[in-house]
Amino acid sequence: MSRFIRARYKGFESYTPGEQPKNMEYVKLNTNESPFPPAPAVLNVLKQADMELLRLYPDPTGAALKEKLASLYGVRAENVFLSNGSDDILNFAVMAFCDDGETLVFPDITYSFYDVIAGLHGAKFETIPLKDDMSIEPGDYCGIGKNIFIPNPNAPTGMTIALEDIESIVKTNPDNIVLIDEAYVDFGADSAVPLTKKYDNLIVSQTFSKSRSFAGGRLGFAIANRELIDDLEKMKYSTNPYNVNRLTMRLAEVSVDENDYYMENCKKIQEIRKYTVTELEKLGFTVLPSKANFVFAKHETASGEHIYEKLKDNGVLVRHFTSERIKDYNRITIGSREQMDTLIERLKTILGMEGTK
Amino acid sequence: MSRFIRARYKGFESYTPGEQPKNMEYVKLNTNESPFPPAPAVLNVLKQADMELLRLYPDPTGAALKEKLASLYGVRAENVFLSNGSDDILNFAVMAFCDDGETLVFPDITYSFYDVIAGLHGAKFETIPLKDDMSIEPGDYCGIGKNIFIPNPNAPTGMTIALEDIESIVKTNPDNIVLIDEAYVDFGADSAVPLTKKYDNLIVSQTFSKSRSFAGGRLGFAIANRELIDDLEKMKYSTNPYNVNRLTMRLAEVSVDENDYYMENCKKIQEIRKYTVTELEKLGFTVLPSKANFVFAKHETASGEHIYEKLKDNGVLVRHFTSERIKDYNRITIGSREQMDTLIERLKTILGMEGTK
Repeated sequence: MSRFIRARYKGFESYTPGEQPKNMEYVKLNTNESPFPPAPAVLNVLKQADMELLRLYPDPTGAALKEKLASLYGVRAENVFLSNGSDDILNFAVMAFCDDGETLVFPDITYSFYDVIAGLHGAKFETIPLKDDMSIEPGDYCGIGKNIFIPNPNAPTGMTIALEDIESIVKTNPDNIVLIDEAYVDFGADSAVPLTKKYDNLIVSQTFSKSRSFAGGRLGFAIANRELIDDLEKMKYSTNPYNVNRLTMRLAEVSVDENDYYMENCKKIQEIRKYTVTELEKLGFTVLPSKANFVFAKHETASGEHIYEKLKDNGVLVRHFTSERIKDYNRITIGSREQMDTLIERLKTILGMEGTK
Repeated sequence: MSRFIRARYKGFESYTPGEQPKNMEYVKLNTNESPFPPAPAVLNVLKQADMELLRLYPDPTGAALKEKLASLYGVRAENVFLSNGSDDILNFAVMAFCDDGETLVFPDITYSFYDVIAGLHGAKFETIPLKDDMSIEPGDYCGIGKNIFIPNPNAPTGMTIALEDIESIVKTNPDNIVLIDEAYVDFGADSAVPLTKKYDNLIVSQTFSKSRSFAGGRLGFAIANRELIDDLEKMKYSTNPYNVNRLTMRLAEVSVDENDYYMENCKKIQEIRKYTVTELEKLGFTVLPSKANFVFAKHETASGEHIYEKLKDNGVLVRHFTSERIKDYNRITIGSREQMDTLIERLKTILGMEGTK
């Protein structure tokens, strides 16, 4: 830290992303990427694209991609916001809507970026504890008169909240924004996108990083009432109007055209998830009911940290969190069937070889 | 604007980027892009790259690209910050260093993004007028005890400030940061990068958008003392850790390898600039002495707006600003020799056909 940094950032902790090993030696099940490659048409587009155009700025309005997404989700282009990954949307939403004196609310166990972003912008925030079974109690969020961020499915639990419960939360906080973070929605949850037509205070954010095999390309989007989208655009145009580059825009357009391919992959992930849960349970794990492309699992005897460390020693990366309430768990990405078999085999070795501790 | 937006953003005006026409019908001389394509090796890399890796997050540390840039600029990787275009750096610098109660200072005529970003984050700012000849008076910035942003060359004037003057400004404001925005430095100005080894309060920002024909790819970088870089990283990791995508990172790496190609193009631009100035002067324009890839020119009789409008009607886009002090001028990107000949020919038609007004 330099001596010039603002007083408010002294001691401020930024977000720690999951490990991104620079080699491919690990079976990488720690950052919820897809085991499937982008669609063939996406891979081909770069061979045909006119790369000479890289010398020119991208279209800051992203008109072509917005049209495609609008058509896919049954909304209008004016209801779509494009961003450099969906973290951008969370950031802009805090900037645009979390006024001094207001409080942002989210679950105590959730995507750890929320409190970092709130802290960064000096927004007050409160967390509401998950229930003992690690699910969200919708009633806790109804009629509280505060801005709310909820992921559905939640991370790192993978557990969902019913659409009618989301509607109750949105409806009973009419003077505040509710952001439903649907990063993992394509793996089995119900999207709140249709509700954006009915409520002017609902923002739904999604990403191409998970279900569309595009974490390396960086594309997030939000769907909401036009006025909310305009506010997000104002933040974007005031920080980085060209934050989605030409190649990402083009590749994302083709990804939308190839939607069936990606939704088929999501079904495969759900099958592999089911298989993985069964196998983990056989080994003595408790696995939360996940609708995401990861599972959150704790072992009956071995500690979460022990499993994380031993798996890493044995070439498998999963994500471990140290906070008290979830330190017994590990978040395990659902990869290919082959990767999950490797995971299970290594777990058998780890648990069998040394017993448990 | 929605009814949810923060009170401070009511009436707030975001930055207006230059027009980005969606067709190629215009001779586009309005946003300072390069007329030259990226280097052949850059164009080829996408054909060879393993696009399957798009499913994985990019390296958030950008280690490989930082090493290459550090080597090119004679600094260490820890002195390099990577960003999604250089606007990101300006944004993060205001966030990190412009504390409540402090004031950010920049010229009255300069990149119009500075006051937008300051306004966005609620940072106080003051502008210092350029001299009558549109140059910066370095003495105005010495010993003022405030954070300072200065582009060198300045935009939209294209005029430079001498390295010893920059050093005086940096040296006499030891408790504040000085950011030298070198977006256009490769077209004939002297870079302040070497001074970053001597002063712990200097940040130099650059971009691949202009001299490296990569506006569509989005890559900016900053060079500074390690502690200042760490502060910028803290802002990035708290808003969007993966803001530079895999393809951009890879293409930028090859761009650095191909540095000679780009520097050769910069020389060509300087030659075309010299030619363009001569031709504009023949037509009755006064052209400020530019070291950038654009010129700022006003006509002896025709108004800036008239020239802008008529050029647009005739298929040539240049950039016109409406603020009082510079409304007589237009900012004209230096394109290819052929594009500049088209510009001159159209100007002759416009000025000759209708006389002047």
